[in-house]
Amino acid sequence: MSADNRPVRTLPIGVFDSGVGGLTVLRALRARMPCEHFMYLGDTARLPYGSKSPETIQRYSLQAAGFLMSRNIKCLVVACNTASATALPLLQQHFQSIPIIGVVEPGAIAGSNSSINGRIAVIATESTVQGGAYQRAIKRVRGDAQVVSSACPLFVALAEEGWTSGSIVEDIAHRYLDGLFNIADAPDTLLLGCTHFPVFRDALRNVIGEHIHLVDSADTTAAALKNLLEQQHLVTPSTQPGAVNFMATDGPERFARVAAHFLGHALSSTDVELVEPTFVAPA
Amino acid sequence: MSADNRPVRTLPIGVFDSGVGGLTVLRALRARMPCEHFMYLGDTARLPYGSKSPETIQRYSLQAAGFLMSRNIKCLVVACNTASATALPLLQQHFQSIPIIGVVEPGAIAGSNSSINGRIAVIATESTVQGGAYQRAIKRVRGDAQVVSSACPLFVALAEEGWTSGSIVEDIAHRYLDGLFNIADAPDTLLLGCTHFPVFRDALRNVIGEHIHLVDSADTTAAALKNLLEQQHLVTPSTQPGAVNFMATDGPERFARVAAHFLGHALSSTDVELVEPTFVAPA
Repeated sequence: MSADNRPVRTLPIGVFDSGVGGLTVLRALRARMPCEHFMYLGDTARLPYGSKSPETIQRYSLQAAGFLMSRNIKCLVVACNTASATALPLLQQHFQSIPIIGVVEPGAIAGSNSSINGRIAVIATESTVQGGAYQRAIKRVRGDAQVVSSACPLFVALAEEGWTSGSIVEDIAHRYLDGLFNIADAPDTLLLGCTHFPVFRDALRNVIGEHIHLVDSADTTAAALKNLLEQQHLVTPSTQPGAVNFMATDGPERFARVAAHFLGHALSSTDVELVEPTFVAPA
Repeated sequence: MSADNRPVRTLPIGVFDSGVGGLTVLRALRARMPCEHFMYLGDTARLPYGSKSPETIQRYSLQAAGFLMSRNIKCLVVACNTASATALPLLQQHFQSIPIIGVVEPGAIAGSNSSINGRIAVIATESTVQGGAYQRAIKRVRGDAQVVSSACPLFVALAEEGWTSGSIVEDIAHRYLDGLFNIADAPDTLLLGCTHFPVFRDALRNVIGEHIHLVDSADTTAAALKNLLEQQHLVTPSTQPGAVNFMATDGPERFARVAAHFLGHALSSTDVELVEPTFVAPA
């Protein structure tokens, strides 16, 4: 039983991200687990995380996770690649009462499984690339892999602006990616190491060509979580479609507007709860 | 005398911005007042401000100003257009012991003075454009002015990335500006309503042509502050070059690296003090 006497398996799954990018992960989670309830928190008052220092990302992540814990969740998905890459072990150590998974390891598994030649390119935020979490995670899955990576901060701004195709996007993609792919022994796989990037799938395909595998962590994260819930007997008994509570630390109107690009359907600002940035202190 | 017994006019001038963009203003201030000391605070842990709500921008601005007040400054320049547009009256009301000036009114004066035909285009962040502060400020200076405006959030990301010229920048500028200028009775003046934007001067000139006046608020803000210090007998008596203390709420290394684009000279991360995000409570 949870603190409010509901059976734990009926509680919602918590999902947190620095903003709206994690909605690509939420979408994959709902597709695999349509009867689960979700609580999605976007830390829009302090986004983006990707250009900030590890210490600051860890502090923000602890606060966001602590806030979702205070709302009673049965598990937590860190949908933000930057937070997963920088703060996941800290969160797991801090909040030991529920399972917590990130998106880096599922992404590394997806990338490793897709690659034939073992050469994998990763694009992510500045902070994720500098921390090297994807390189390490891929090496753990596949010791012979060769990983190259590039920080693509402008993609985050483009996604937030809703510019997801066309010549400007492709020119920027060329500038970021040509150095990774126009080489001898080029990668055969491009791993999208930021939750904002799946919206550029078609544009990236135009730039890198048909023969490169394009993978993101959303679907493998959803598969990993489903597996975990089954193993730990945390699957909801409900057979009705689950609900989603959207929460943001700033600007529900803007959240709803930008979220539409990621969710693939409209969202009303009245469906987004503005939550206090004075988070509950972590346990 | 100040709280620490130094004569007030020998104290530094406080300058605050959401990040590094305000360094374009600092540069203009130093050019006009080379003997003054400055304290520059970039709130890098929470940047950018331009996509956030008025309430959040006001809260952050109060905290940043309160922090600089605690370090003993003789006046405060709100170098961030977004914070100036959204929080200046609140700051002036809250901290009545020192003069506080923003960049919106000086920018509006510069734009109004430059325009012959009275039609002025303003480009700024989302929040600044939505709040309408430039429109109101220009109308106060010049009642007959016609103001059109456009939010250009990608320029902020481009400036942070250091991509300040070339075809990508110009293509993005066309997308933002063509609608403002390719019309009958087009503006003759483009006001750069964000401190990040002066780095795009050459690229913007290529896009809008030679005949449009391009103005920013940095120099008029410096002129306004110099005038204010003279009137209030706050000019430093020193005839030696003044010092600058750089402070950031996150990532001194990144601050120093990106700052170089704005300062026009290199800066070492050891010259940037990391200050606690637990700001002193405002008075």
